[in-house]
Amino acid sequence: MILRIDRLGTELPPPSDPDPDGANAVQELMGGRFGEMSTLMNYTFQSFNFRNRQGARPFYDLISNIAAEEYGHIELVAATINTMLTGASPVADGRPPSDALAGVKGKGNPHHFLAGGQGALPQDSRGMPWTGDYVFSSGDLVEDLTHNFFLETGARNNKLKVYEMVDHPAARALTGYLLVRGGVHQVAYARAVELLTGADLSSMFPTPRIPTEKIPECQPHIKRGDHKRLYRFSPDDYKEIIAVFRGPHPETGEDLEVVDQAPEGALPNDLPAQPAVFAPDYAPEEIKAIAQKLRQAAGLPDEPLGQVAAPADGPGMVGKVADKLKP
Amino acid sequence: MILRIDRLGTELPPPSDPDPDGANAVQELMGGRFGEMSTLMNYTFQSFNFRNRQGARPFYDLISNIAAEEYGHIELVAATINTMLTGASPVADGRPPSDALAGVKGKGNPHHFLAGGQGALPQDSRGMPWTGDYVFSSGDLVEDLTHNFFLETGARNNKLKVYEMVDHPAARALTGYLLVRGGVHQVAYARAVELLTGADLSSMFPTPRIPTEKIPECQPHIKRGDHKRLYRFSPDDYKEIIAVFRGPHPETGEDLEVVDQAPEGALPNDLPAQPAVFAPDYAPEEIKAIAQKLRQAAGLPDEPLGQVAAPADGPGMVGKVADKLKP
Amino acid sequence: MILRIDRLGTELPPPSDPDPDGANAVQELMGGRFGEMSTLMNYTFQSFNFRNRQGARPFYDLISNIAAEEYGHIELVAATINTMLTGASPVADGRPPSDALAGVKGKGNPHHFLAGGQGALPQDSRGMPWTGDYVFSSGDLVEDLTHNFFLETGARNNKLKVYEMVDHPAARALTGYLLVRGGVHQVAYARAVELLTGADLSSMFPTPRIPTEKIPECQPHIKRGDHKRLYRFSPDDYKEIIAVFRGPHPETGEDLEVVDQAPEGALPNDLPAQPAVFAPDYAPEEIKAIAQKLRQAAGLPDEPLGQVAAPADGPGMVGKVADKLKP
Amino acid sequence: MILRIDRLGTELPPPSDPDPDGANAVQELMGGRFGEMSTLMNYTFQSFNFRNRQGARPFYDLISNIAAEEYGHIELVAATINTMLTGASPVADGRPPSDALAGVKGKGNPHHFLAGGQGALPQDSRGMPWTGDYVFSSGDLVEDLTHNFFLETGARNNKLKVYEMVDHPAARALTGYLLVRGGVHQVAYARAVELLTGADLSSMFPTPRIPTEKIPECQPHIKRGDHKRLYRFSPDDYKEIIAVFRGPHPETGEDLEVVDQAPEGALPNDLPAQPAVFAPDYAPEEIKAIAQKLRQAAGLPDEPLGQVAAPADGPGMVGKVADKLKP
Amino acid sequence: MILRIDRLGTELPPPSDPDPDGANAVQELMGGRFGEMSTLMNYTFQSFNFRNRQGARPFYDLISNIAAEEYGHIELVAATINTMLTGASPVADGRPPSDALAGVKGKGNPHHFLAGGQGALPQDSRGMPWTGDYVFSSGDLVEDLTHNFFLETGARNNKLKVYEMVDHPAARALTGYLLVRGGVHQVAYARAVELLTGADLSSMFPTPRIPTEKIPECQPHIKRGDHKRLYRFSPDDYKEIIAVFRGPHPETGEDLEVVDQAPEGALPNDLPAQPAVFAPDYAPEEIKAIAQKLRQAAGLPDEPLGQVAAPADGPGMVGKVADKLKP
Amino acid sequence: MILRIDRLGTELPPPSDPDPDGANAVQELMGGRFGEMSTLMNYTFQSFNFRNRQGARPFYDLISNIAAEEYGHIELVAATINTMLTGASPVADGRPPSDALAGVKGKGNPHHFLAGGQGALPQDSRGMPWTGDYVFSSGDLVEDLTHNFFLETGARNNKLKVYEMVDHPAARALTGYLLVRGGVHQVAYARAVELLTGADLSSMFPTPRIPTEKIPECQPHIKRGDHKRLYRFSPDDYKEIIAVFRGPHPETGEDLEVVDQAPEGALPNDLPAQPAVFAPDYAPEEIKAIAQKLRQAAGLPDEPLGQVAAPADGPGMVGKVADKLKP
Repeated sequence: MILRIDRLGTELPPPSDPDPDGANAVQELMGGRFGEMSTLMNYTFQSFNFRNRQGARPFYDLISNIAAEEYGHIELVAATINTMLTGASPVADGRPPSDALAGVKGKGNPHHFLAGGQGALPQDSRGMPWTGDYVFSSGDLVEDLTHNFFLETGARNNKLKVYEMVDHPAARALTGYLLVRGGVHQVAYARAVELLTGADLSSMFPTPRIPTEKIPECQPHIKRGDHKRLYRFSPDDYKEIIAVFRGPHPETGEDLEVVDQAPEGALPNDLPAQPAVFAPDYAPEEIKAIAQKLRQAAGLPDEPLGQVAAPADGPGMVGKVADKLKP
Repeated sequence: MILRIDRLGTELPPPSDPDPDGANAVQELMGGRFGEMSTLMNYTFQSFNFRNRQGARPFYDLISNIAAEEYGHIELVAATINTMLTGASPVADGRPPSDALAGVKGKGNPHHFLAGGQGALPQDSRGMPWTGDYVFSSGDLVEDLTHNFFLETGARNNKLKVYEMVDHPAARALTGYLLVRGGVHQVAYARAVELLTGADLSSMFPTPRIPTEKIPECQPHIKRGDHKRLYRFSPDDYKEIIAVFRGPHPETGEDLEVVDQAPEGALPNDLPAQPAVFAPDYAPEEIKAIAQKLRQAAGLPDEPLGQVAAPADGPGMVGKVADKLKP
Repeated sequence: MILRIDRLGTELPPPSDPDPDGANAVQELMGGRFGEMSTLMNYTFQSFNFRNRQGARPFYDLISNIAAEEYGHIELVAATINTMLTGASPVADGRPPSDALAGVKGKGNPHHFLAGGQGALPQDSRGMPWTGDYVFSSGDLVEDLTHNFFLETGARNNKLKVYEMVDHPAARALTGYLLVRGGVHQVAYARAVELLTGADLSSMFPTPRIPTEKIPECQPHIKRGDHKRLYRFSPDDYKEIIAVFRGPHPETGEDLEVVDQAPEGALPNDLPAQPAVFAPDYAPEEIKAIAQKLRQAAGLPDEPLGQVAAPADGPGMVGKVADKLKP
Repeated sequence: MILRIDRLGTELPPPSDPDPDGANAVQELMGGRFGEMSTLMNYTFQSFNFRNRQGARPFYDLISNIAAEEYGHIELVAATINTMLTGASPVADGRPPSDALAGVKGKGNPHHFLAGGQGALPQDSRGMPWTGDYVFSSGDLVEDLTHNFFLETGARNNKLKVYEMVDHPAARALTGYLLVRGGVHQVAYARAVELLTGADLSSMFPTPRIPTEKIPECQPHIKRGDHKRLYRFSPDDYKEIIAVFRGPHPETGEDLEVVDQAPEGALPNDLPAQPAVFAPDYAPEEIKAIAQKLRQAAGLPDEPLGQVAAPADGPGMVGKVADKLKP
Repeated sequence: MILRIDRLGTELPPPSDPDPDGANAVQELMGGRFGEMSTLMNYTFQSFNFRNRQGARPFYDLISNIAAEEYGHIELVAATINTMLTGASPVADGRPPSDALAGVKGKGNPHHFLAGGQGALPQDSRGMPWTGDYVFSSGDLVEDLTHNFFLETGARNNKLKVYEMVDHPAARALTGYLLVRGGVHQVAYARAVELLTGADLSSMFPTPRIPTEKIPECQPHIKRGDHKRLYRFSPDDYKEIIAVFRGPHPETGEDLEVVDQAPEGALPNDLPAQPAVFAPDYAPEEIKAIAQKLRQAAGLPDEPLGQVAAPADGPGMVGKVADKLKP
Repeated sequence: MILRIDRLGTELPPPSDPDPDGANAVQELMGGRFGEMSTLMNYTFQSFNFRNRQGARPFYDLISNIAAEEYGHIELVAATINTMLTGASPVADGRPPSDALAGVKGKGNPHHFLAGGQGALPQDSRGMPWTGDYVFSSGDLVEDLTHNFFLETGARNNKLKVYEMVDHPAARALTGYLLVRGGVHQVAYARAVELLTGADLSSMFPTPRIPTEKIPECQPHIKRGDHKRLYRFSPDDYKEIIAVFRGPHPETGEDLEVVDQAPEGALPNDLPAQPAVFAPDYAPEEIKAIAQKLRQAAGLPDEPLGQVAAPADGPGMVGKVADKLKP
């Protein structure tokens, strides 16, 4: 079972210029063979299928715990794509009938607009859906860990390339963060393989040879020490990860650390409605009125109990995006 | 982000007779269009993509929170399949080379044995992988909720049919539980549609017309009241679900209830190794020795910190399964 | 546009022994690359996309008209599969909860029972869905016709093999009929190619070398002359097919004929309910009562206006199938 | 069986500016999960698989009859796409070798040009083929109808979005028409659910909240009354639809009507050849000469028996498109 | 370019008992994610896409040369499947119409009989086709090699499992051979990674921990030394493989060797016709007569120039299989 | 088995202007249903599955030998795509972090950059992967040959369309060559059908009606006589092709010829590194240094033993491409 926390793994900037082609590229990090759906589901199924857990608890805990972090990664990729799609149809008032989507004809993934509501999808940059055949769960511990090391290697490759292709601030914030966190997972799996087999993989790092120290968007996370830390994403479980995630970082030599709780993360932005695609409605204000009535009937306070970094209809949010549309 | 708890939503029986054909049927509840991967990912993406959350907080909280419960459902389906596959190759000692898998040639999903390690896969009962194209996330709140109501309807149909096809105790425990919990989600989404549109869907229930009151494996959950309860799967978030999940249950007229925490659930069984498929290794005892050394080096106590309902190598577990194999 | 006629292209026997494995094999003729979905959709799209129709009217009419006949073929394949699946769960009373589907665990296509209601699906014999990528519509008339000749060749191959694998009376009635009708379409496309290019394909027939004259189930259709006849499936259109479908039959030398209307065909059987899979309901008699009331309110007569060959609940139909189930 | 009529459901404008990107967007209405292939095949298979038809005749007739109308919808979508692709390569003379397709490199769906002959394909806006897995046919009448109501809901969403993205006159004529006709099907399925279960879905309409009354291209159809009419697409069958399709329209309160025949529709345009892609040939005039000879040999009159709205080689058709190409 | 040699990599036994379920399992080694189609096409595309070859010639040569060997592996897997399917329909005379395929209804992959002619297909053990998305070709040399090492690891896992599931002599001969040769490729890629990065992977071997020394069917190949040899599959190219494939074997410590030519291999058996599926014809003797006439006309000698290990119609071949069919 | 030769079937120009949209179009010739992967794998599997080879040796040899040539065609298509992608990111120095891929955002197939290293993939022009379901191998000789004739027909269609869409010199060199060679294969299969059935297909040629005599890039190959020649791609096998590939060419009347060896072909260009995508590395010069050391250790001479047409880092190659990037 899981408990869900309504915060993101890291802070994302608010919407600015919409970038449908860029959002399409970022989809590779969601639904591609090496995207976050893949890391999430590979580790999740491997943990589900783990036999004789008590006999290999530190490794079971490691895979289970990294699986838990990956959930936060698909969340973050989705938030990035949603940020980049905001404003691709008019925010202030784009109610049909009109040609509110004419500007994105032939741009990006048409499903972002025709099937979805300017929102993220479990697809890759070709528009191909993520498939369960991307999951490798052989049951053989060493083999699964070898796979995971390779998976993270391929994932870092893809993250860097999206970085190089898309300079939208949200995409850069995302890839800077994921390069650092994916690097930690790669180290964790390499260490697990080393401890089980006696091989020494440290001289393979960094692989691919990404110079994270030169990437500006990686710096805050490196400075915070997040390149050498594994967080424990559970109230009481997966405590034996410390038996595997230890020793020197293969690139810097610093000691690897386990943090005994989830990171604080950041509040999500409340992205503004896109009435042209009925997200969340043709007339969001009516939904709001109904919700308000229901909240009152349930004895809830006037202000929503949930928190967001920035309100969807604040002047900063709508105004900023809406201004883009002026000729 | 999520926190993961190493417990199952409900108790499952230990392995008994292996049932590869039955396990294949249960895969429909994992990776089918109406399986738990679909409910999980539909609600998860809808919550990620929800725009103007503050203006519709009770609905955002509802979808987000049910998404969180669904994670526990894919976990439970996996545990069921793993239980049913245990013993399909020799448990006590089936180390290669031998013909340890000869008995399952032409049975069930060959990927359970050839690709996986007698473990669950994100596939349906045809062996087709789950695909991201099963996700519907239009952004339109009423439409997404209509979809979700329909999705739960189809899911209940599939659950009943698996119940009728597979009488393995683990499959029956699973389907009894899921029929009750899926029913709650169906009610929740119907209620949300009703509150937003003014329609009255209550006379549609039960749909399909499944007589859960006559299904023995549903009774413990109904008696406990779980057919009218929504649990809140979060330390601090999604508190506004009470504004939607309320009023009379459409079938029984009882008041719907929100429980302000996750259910207690049950400890998982530690399923025994299957050396013929190297799960978790050709020689699990060596993995165990390495793990033990690592645990000591990390200052962990002698006994694993993680708990299981029954040990993988206990006489009850291995003996029971191993006895099946004697001529 | 189309007008639909509630009759089958040929008569099918009523349900007898259920045959899930056989029904699965027959699915190849529905959703396989060379199945009837493929012939239907290839010719349909080719006719939709036909440019400069007036300049090539006889060919446009030919493709359009054969497309129309193919609709009747998917209908007939579906009726065959439905007939073969009838009785695979109890007909008389198999209402859940029970293990009504235990007997088909590991048999045939699990989607026939878990996803569908013991009914046909647009899938092939592997359970793979029919896909739009099976459609070839190049716009080049000679090339499309060459394709169609080859498609019918492959389709005849598949039909014969299903004949050889499945001896269920419904499957044999189907394949006997389709071998004859598919043969006509093959001849039609060959003749079209000959007329456009000057090639002489007649010595290729029969291809594959299927001895239809030795197949008992082909005889009624051959005797009736249906191996050399093209029916016109339209009230007023496609009259120029006579400009192409003419000359000697390449195998028999008989004159090809155009029949200026659709064949009479046969009434479908009304297949009995399968309550275990809720088809059409847990309690079909309640549906019937509602329907009856609605019919009365609409001023319809007591007896249904639609006709069937044999009633679903007649003693012949249910009794026959139900008797199979007795130990 | 069907009879095919060589007329379209509604009139489409002749080709004007080619719009490959727009044509690609319109493909979503053909081969998308909610496209017309899906509505056609869902209802078709549900009607094929309907058990105990006599006991539920009005519902069987309803589904069967709507299935028949949907055939006309895939035809219309195809005609629209073909219209929009006309002129994307030179019409007057674009015979190879040349760079006749250079202008569409990187535009729209490359299969429109490389695989097809500037013609419609059973694919969606991503170029993904329609798949049989989009068909839902559970056999459970209420469940199938619930699905169909939801399917039409999603289909209307997609139609509006294509409307907003593509302002090509053919696309607008298409979507205006489909929004009205799809709306009727949605009402029909909702009414069927209401009659079977007692639920009242009328307050859900319109869903999604599309203001068809404000959409200019919907007006002719609404004025004609087509928003409240179900046509009967059969010479003699499906007469019991009047027992279900009745009562007040949920949006306007007007009485629903059954028209006891197919609509008159409109003649299709004969779209001009596209020699650059050999559609229908490198030298269409030679095909024409052969066809003419065959027609004479068959005793057909000089003028084609089939009718079109406008000839492919008339000055209006070719000239109009050809002029676009002049620098 | 390639030159093709009509010999197999190793000797296979002639057909004996047909084993359709076993043949289906062996398909995993053909079209599965880790099957020989995958190893062939991964290395082939990596070699095609290799940039700056002169700067990394030993590695380019290594990947190119192993790619060449893999072609022989898909050939061998196909020959094995064909051997196992021989006799599944009557060999001596099974000409239609009959029920020649009744015995394989519900067995193995139905496409072996309905779509193919009792022959191998590029599908996996689920009947899912091999897909180009199994190819990884990042262009990054270290990453591609890491992938290849992992791919060979997974491939060995699958080979062993097929060994354990299928005891047909042809399957065992195949898997015994492939385990040895795949092991060599795994070592080669590990060594390449070691040389490029400085990591030492030798302690990971064997991975998975397959005891090839205990597998009887591996022994002839190990005794011959084929577990430590790389053959050069080219008349004049790929000579720099010796710069990488050298040093001690990680398991045995023996020196790795490069053999400067292709292995001798073995002649294939000429598998007998299966007239029931028209392979190669309804009347193979007529094909033979035509071929003989053509050969004479071309001045070819009476006996075929091509050689086979055993003739298709020799008493050993047909008699052996045909005898199985006698009651 | 095969022997691989490190030469291309024909000469390709060095990289010039990068053309990602064009490269995407060329992918249709690689991974499309009628692409070279399809011709290669169809003939390869048909040859693997050929039963009673000795009885039909000339036909077995024909299919086997053409299969061998097709390998060279996928190689050539890959080389073309790689040439066209060269320079799409900076060649001289594009090392991350930067926005080296910003210029190709929204262009071509994103997998060329995000998943691959600016290299060819087994995908079509939609980015859909090649699938094993494109392979037709019925075992029926006449049917397989009919298929092959049709396959080559469709392939020629696609080649011409790519010619018309893409005027990049490499694409034109490729399509000019493939049109000629594919034409030979089409003739070969037609002749085989003629010899087996007695049909005369010659008047169908050319089909489609491509005027190769007017296509400049076809001329060198036609002048050399390659439009009427079949090369034998084997040291000692497939010698009986002369019994089928003979008689007059259906278009020109010239005698068909068999050349008893493979064509000389041409050396490939050594395409320059693309450091932005790590192909072959972030720092290719370091790979080179390692390779050089390894070569020395193995006693290899200073200059690579493998030959290329033009060096990757020669002034002509890098300078030419690099100059494109200057503002």
